[in-house]
This record gives sequence, C-alpha cells and structure tokens, in this order.
Amino acid sequence: MLIDIGSTVSFLKSHDNFTILTHAHPDGDTLGSGFGLCLALRALGKKANVVNNEELPPKFRYLEIEPQEFAEQTVVAVDIADANLMGNDIKAEYETKVDLSIDHHGSNRLFAKMNYVDSSAAAAAQIIFEVIGLLGVEITPQIANCLYTGISTDTGCFRYANVTPATLRTAAKLMEAGADAAKINVMMFETKTRTYAALEKLALDGMQFFYDGKCALITITRDMFAESGSDENECDGIAAISRQIEGVLVGVTVRERRDGSFKASVRTHNPVDASAICSRFGGGGHPNAAGCQLPGTKDEAIKQLIDVIGEFI
Amino acid sequence: MLIDIGSTVSFLKSHDNFTILTHAHPDGDTLGSGFGLCLALRALGKKANVVNNEELPPKFRYLEIEPQEFAEQTVVAVDIADANLMGNDIKAEYETKVDLSIDHHGSNRLFAKMNYVDSSAAAAAQIIFEVIGLLGVEITPQIANCLYTGISTDTGCFRYANVTPATLRTAAKLMEAGADAAKINVMMFETKTRTYAALEKLALDGMQFFYDGKCALITITRDMFAESGSDENECDGIAAISRQIEGVLVGVTVRERRDGSFKASVRTHNPVDASAICSRFGGGGHPNAAGCQLPGTKDEAIKQLIDVIGEFI
Repeated sequence: MLIDIGSTVSFLKSHDNFTILTHAHPDGDTLGSGFGLCLALRALGKKANVVNNEELPPKFRYLEIEPQEFAEQTVVAVDIADANLMGNDIKAEYETKVDLSIDHHGSNRLFAKMNYVDSSAAAAAQIIFEVIGLLGVEITPQIANCLYTGISTDTGCFRYANVTPATLRTAAKLMEAGADAAKINVMMFETKTRTYAALEKLALDGMQFFYDGKCALITITRDMFAESGSDENECDGIAAISRQIEGVLVGVTVRERRDGSFKASVRTHNPVDASAICSRFGGGGHPNAAGCQLPGTKDEAIKQLIDVIGEFI
Repeated sequence: MLIDIGSTVSFLKSHDNFTILTHAHPDGDTLGSGFGLCLALRALGKKANVVNNEELPPKFRYLEIEPQEFAEQTVVAVDIADANLMGNDIKAEYETKVDLSIDHHGSNRLFAKMNYVDSSAAAAAQIIFEVIGLLGVEITPQIANCLYTGISTDTGCFRYANVTPATLRTAAKLMEAGADAAKINVMMFETKTRTYAALEKLALDGMQFFYDGKCALITITRDMFAESGSDENECDGIAAISRQIEGVLVGVTVRERRDGSFKASVRTHNPVDASAICSRFGGGGHPNAAGCQLPGTKDEAIKQLIDVIGEFI
C-alpha cells in the first residue's frame, strides 16, 4: 500500500521498538537515513536500532550509533527499492515483515505493508529530513551529519540531475543545524586511499571503448584488487570515471566479486536509462545510475551487457 | 577605499558605459561574475562589455555574450584580488583606471578606487547575485547560468569549506531562475576529454611524495602535454588530485608554461595555508587553494617550493 508523508509520520508516532533496515552494500544515503531516523525516534523517547546486512565500510563508521536492547515490534526500511537489495541475511529474516518503507527510488517494488515513496527527492535522507520535521524533533548536529551525508553522497555532492532547489535548501538547513559539511565532503569526495589511487590507475589503463566511444567499460578483477591492495569497499568512485570521458553516454564498471561472479555499475547521460539497462539483468536503480548482477564468466558477462547497451545507444 | 554593498549598487546605478575586467587564466567565477553583471547592467538599459586578457577556454564559451559598441566611461573588476592577476595586456591598460572592484578574496589588495570585498562569499558570483537583486534586475536564465557557473566552479560543486548556507540558498534561487545546473555540472565536473584523461594518467604515474606523505607533488611538463595531446586549459582538474590522497595535507601541481617557466597550484587541507605558501613566491589565493609563479629551472623551482612547504607542515 502506498501512503503519504502524513500517514508515515502518524505511524512512526504511534509505534515503538523500531528496527530500521538499510540496503546491502550500504551507501551514505541508506546509512545516513537509517541512523538519522533512529536518532530522531530515540529523541521521542522510543527504542530504535539500525540493522545492517554487513559491517559498515570504514568510511561510514562515523555515522554508527550504539544499539539498544529491546524486543522488536516495528520494522522500517529506508532507501531500499526492492527486498532483493536487503542482502541475504536481512532478506531471510525480514522480507515479509517490513511494516513501513521510506524510499526515493521511482523503481520501488512496494514490498512493505506501507510504502512512502517520493521519487522527487534526491536522496532518502531528504525525505527523512521532512519526516523528522513533522515528528517535531529538533535536528541535532549528529542527525544533521547523518542526513547531510545521505544527501551529499546520493547527489555526487550536488552535481547530479536529481538535485532540486529543495535539495540545496535542505542542505543549507542541515549546515545551520550543525552538519560538518566541509569535513564530510573531504571524507566522502576528496579522500583517496593510496590503495584506491593504485586501483584507479589500473582501471584507467584497461578502459575499453565501444560504439564509437559512446560506451566506456572498466573491468576490475580480483587480480587488480590484489595488485593494488584495494577492495570492493573502495569501488564506488571508480564507477563514476568512465562516464566522465567526453562523448561517453554509458559508462560501465564490471567488477569481479569474491565468489567469482560479476556485478555491473552503469552510469549514463540522458537520454540513456541506466535503470532500464540493468533491469534486463534483474537489477535496477535510478535513470542515470543503476546496478545489476551479470550471469556467466567475465567474457560472457561483458558481452551480454555490452550487447544490451547497444540497444539503448 | 573600501565601500559597502549599498554604495556599490548606487555606483553601478549612477554610471554607464561599463568595461568589466576579469582575471587572467579566467575561471568560471571571474567569467560567470563578469558576464552575469554585464547582462544585468544591460537589462537596466546601460552599455557594458566584458574584457578578457585572453581567449576564453573552450569549456567556458557558453557564457560569452556579444560585445557592444560604446565609449568606455566606467571600469569594474570582478574576482580580481590583485592588479598583477589581470594579465599583462589588461594590466598595462587598466591598472590605475579601475573605478570599482567587486571581489571575495580576503587577500584583495584594494587596487581600485572603490573596493567592495566580501570574503564570506564562496564566489564573486554569490556577491554579484546580491548586487543584481539590489539593482532590481530580474535574474534571467542566462544570468542564472553565469552565476551558477561561478558558484559551482569556485566551490568544487559545493564541496569546499567556503560553502555556507547562503551559498546553497543562492544556488537554489539560481536553479529556480532557470540555471541549467545539471548540464553545467556535467560540463564543468563530469567531462574529461580523452586528452585530459591521458594527461591525468601521466600525472598520476609521476606523482611524488614528501614529508612522510604529507605533501604530494605532480609535475606537468611540455613533453607531457605533447604526449597526451592536452594543454594548459585542461590543467585545472589535475590540481585537485594530489590533495585527495589520504594523509596528504598539501597537494602541489607544478606545470611548465609555454615560455619554459613554472607555475604552481597549491591545494591544502586545514590548517595549512595555501595562500601563505604562495605569497612567499609573490602569488596568492584562498586559504586552501592558491597559486604562484616559481623561479628557476624545473628542479630549482620544485626544490624551493618543497622547502617552503616544509616550513608549513
């Protein structure tokens, strides 16, 4: 069932003992939204925890808060478009138990009992900011840091086409509430580990072009992780690189997972729809940034993906 | 003489036939501020032109407007902290003739007859936005594109420590006035020419570290321009790279100019003052981003700069 923001706020006010779920391979938005909402619910005197499918990547650990002890009564998902994106452990336990989902993905599958989806919001954290305001909770500096992280990471620090005047005004209010914007931006956008820098160099060296340079492909193998000392947690930045080359409409990063399977991150310029490309492989996301698992060996996976991209260019 | 924004606006209202000067090696802020102010003055029925010391870099040509014919009466400088930054031709003609300077550099040398300097503004374009509002001119989409370009480029697209809530709110208003924010951001931040990508690879290959990794140095020679097919207009992005490496407090890019001399771009993290480092060589800028000419051959230039940086780390 789709609900509006008023019903969302009423539901949160009238319930307690919350488990807040974030999506697998957690990013700044799911974590910032989750911890921000958790802190707001606690400020109302309620019990709430954030549950992740895996350990937080080191760069997001500053968002983490101490868990509380209580008997779970209410399950809320934030920034999760599809139960399949919960991660296996969380999915096994919670797939049918999510009471309320708060999300900004237009592709949301409405898997929860109640779903509040605002696809005009650049980030789930932008919605959580509104929700917290309607809950009557003051935005503390800690909440502001959570929500600023969500908004800045999901917009490439206000670069992408999903930014609206409301996104910028929300960020302004978060700064006034004490968000340490410059420090967060340095951590999120201006810091490359030496291992990441080495991986980036290997990635650039192997970049391939298709369709008259309209598609650029970066492939990251386990060997490249080993050679650079980097790992999957550091891959997010790489995904943006290939689309940045002049003339490229579709930038693809295919990376080998620990189990030998391959995952694609697809970044597009308009009018190419990244989400449509990835949905052909059972994945999804946003019009300009989406992801999917690929079937088969490296060469098979890449061939199938490049063929599908050819249909969209 | 220092003046306030009210006197600045009165001066603009009561004068006509404006020449607006921008700084040499023009960036998005000096150009966006210059063309934005020029369009606003024309909207008031006045004559105004923007004068540049050199041709605009290709990526900024969308800002350009047709010059008008008139006998110059009033000279305004925008985003120029020091007459030495005007470029040789402009300096020779205008050094002593600038009636009004509008700038946001705390290091402004007050070289004009009247100077309005607001160092709390992230970009000169943020000041020009205020000035245009007080002039009573409506922000057209074209003016909005100029000012948005100024603000986004001088803040690394809202990443840097100079961003305030007012910066974000100004950007929100510019989007509402019709600024094509997403398109400008793609052009400014998400587009690498193939030649730039090749230069970047060479730059990364040659990166050197000093002072236990606290200082990273990239050197760009004429040979590297030749090998990559890139040129000086494409160097701005490179300057940001070295500071991004984890643990680096001072990122330096030294590049060889056409005449064989060397120029340094210095980017720092707090508390290291880039402007103080560059002022030792007669240059200047902002606390975290500054530039200067270096004396001597490549090796001499680098040695002197690295020595000075050592005093600041």
